[in-house]
Amino acid sequence: MKAVEYKEGYLTLLDQTELPHQTSYKTVNTVEEVAQAIEQMVVRGAPAIGITAAYGAAIGAREFKGGHFSTHMERVINRLKNTRPTAVNLHWALKRVSHLITDNQSETIQRLEDEAHLIDQEDTTINLAIGQSLQHLVQDGTSFLIHCNPGMLATSAYGTATAPFYLAHEQNISFKVYSDETRPRLQGALTAYELAQAGIDVTIITDSTAATLMQQGEITAIFVGCDRVAANGDVVNKIGTLPLAIAAHYYHVPFYVAAPTPTFDLEVASGEGIPIEERNPYEVTHIHDKAITVEGSAVYNPAFDVTPHELITALATEHGLVDATEEAIKKLFGEEEAK
Amino acid sequence: MKAVEYKEGYLTLLDQTELPHQTSYKTVNTVEEVAQAIEQMVVRGAPAIGITAAYGAAIGAREFKGGHFSTHMERVINRLKNTRPTAVNLHWALKRVSHLITDNQSETIQRLEDEAHLIDQEDTTINLAIGQSLQHLVQDGTSFLIHCNPGMLATSAYGTATAPFYLAHEQNISFKVYSDETRPRLQGALTAYELAQAGIDVTIITDSTAATLMQQGEITAIFVGCDRVAANGDVVNKIGTLPLAIAAHYYHVPFYVAAPTPTFDLEVASGEGIPIEERNPYEVTHIHDKAITVEGSAVYNPAFDVTPHELITALATEHGLVDATEEAIKKLFGEEEAK
Repeated sequence: MKAVEYKEGYLTLLDQTELPHQTSYKTVNTVEEVAQAIEQMVVRGAPAIGITAAYGAAIGAREFKGGHFSTHMERVINRLKNTRPTAVNLHWALKRVSHLITDNQSETIQRLEDEAHLIDQEDTTINLAIGQSLQHLVQDGTSFLIHCNPGMLATSAYGTATAPFYLAHEQNISFKVYSDETRPRLQGALTAYELAQAGIDVTIITDSTAATLMQQGEITAIFVGCDRVAANGDVVNKIGTLPLAIAAHYYHVPFYVAAPTPTFDLEVASGEGIPIEERNPYEVTHIHDKAITVEGSAVYNPAFDVTPHELITALATEHGLVDATEEAIKKLFGEEEAK
Repeated sequence: MKAVEYKEGYLTLLDQTELPHQTSYKTVNTVEEVAQAIEQMVVRGAPAIGITAAYGAAIGAREFKGGHFSTHMERVINRLKNTRPTAVNLHWALKRVSHLITDNQSETIQRLEDEAHLIDQEDTTINLAIGQSLQHLVQDGTSFLIHCNPGMLATSAYGTATAPFYLAHEQNISFKVYSDETRPRLQGALTAYELAQAGIDVTIITDSTAATLMQQGEITAIFVGCDRVAANGDVVNKIGTLPLAIAAHYYHVPFYVAAPTPTFDLEVASGEGIPIEERNPYEVTHIHDKAITVEGSAVYNPAFDVTPHELITALATEHGLVDATEEAIKKLFGEEEAK
């Protein structure tokens, strides 16, 4: 089960709009198709979107048919950039590949394919390291809450917030995971699907049930992913993350955000500076194309929310646990740049 | 649009499992049918369930075909009592009618029908008074959040938590209501439906979006209903009430519980003593009979949660606003008994 796979101009995506009912793949070989797959959430999850966009740029380089190559590539990068506004990995990956574009098409194709492949591989390494930073919490008899799908389906492998579960399961540790269903897109069913496939004990709950489990003392810790981390440690993640963080704070449940460094955006001072994508009301009013409200109902459907840094126990990065504070983040990136 | 209507042995229920898509009515005339209508949530909402059970007892008295009348009536009351465990209005209404049962069938029928009718009428009076106790908050330019359907569909008229909206709307006050969709049964669509029908500005959100609106300073106050209030002021209401109350506390948003006195249960000291109904996993795994998760997914589906009294700004009763404390509640019922 691999979310994104590339071979010689063809990108094969596990179609996540059909999961968990049907395991089908979509193969695309134009920039427009790649962009639409991101927009329609055939591929989803900040890391997987970054990887897809990088391969998409390589596909774009292959599509050049004449004229100015650099103008063409500018259009390619812009089309990919304008798919989804919130996850910063998209911009990060496109920036990385943009630096490698030359005037020579075949050279550029080779460079972009190599770089996309590298981003893909690095993501696996990052997730393993994130998993290791949280794995000590996953002991026999513990129970965890997870929101949305920061899983292998959203990344190259292991997932971000699910990585500690896969690592602990490999060591035969016996624990329990509650997966929020995550309205409106129900990505919690994806998490339940992938964890159950791996043999991990997983239970689906409605998003509203999470607080009750915390009240009952049933939750050891909460692990979530993220789409962007601001310079002060505020986190933007799937809608529903904020109420979990508030309830965790109220019940003193540790709240960890799996945050690969490509997800940090030091250019925005706080969460307020991060654009929040508002998606189609149809996602709320319909499930499987069947109406669940009366026609014409007004809807407010932000896809993400902002969790203030003071509610976060720690950010789990590939360099270990980091406090969700400006100082700690500055230090983390200072060290990284010094390398 | 009346949720429950009775005429000479026939109870006509607005079928809330078909709403908001279809306005259809179900007429029942046996105790078994009444009990199943409650169980299957054809009729729902604590006050409406109480009213339905009272009429159901009268229907039961009519069904007597021979043998011991008192034994028959005991079976009738027990069948109705064992439909849903959490809402106390059911027990309260059945207790009220039970006291009126005599050895004489026709006398009992008359007495039960009169009493059920009285409970029905009293409910309207109660809701109007609750509406008046909260109406001062509903000013031009204010915005409210509501969870589940504590509306006219759940009561004889006006609803409990919706009553201030109907009263303010009659006075041409311009305000906005956000209706939580309320997974898993999506009763928020019922609230949006009935408020929109009345011409009130209402917007549907996923349950997870409520915290974001509070964070944005968009919510003037939250109004919810309840299924049972414990002696200390803890409130049991639809699952999802607790996380709202916690977020409201965090963002200093006033949190009011519309609580008719029949919903109080002074015999339970705190929320922990109230039985929480766990409903079929199918409610979570399927919408309109279509699966939204993979088959065999483990599910935890409590229908209600317990909101601790310290998170409640006030209980809005038919006698005005009352602090959610043991002392205030004792005083309220002391005064009521003294009358």
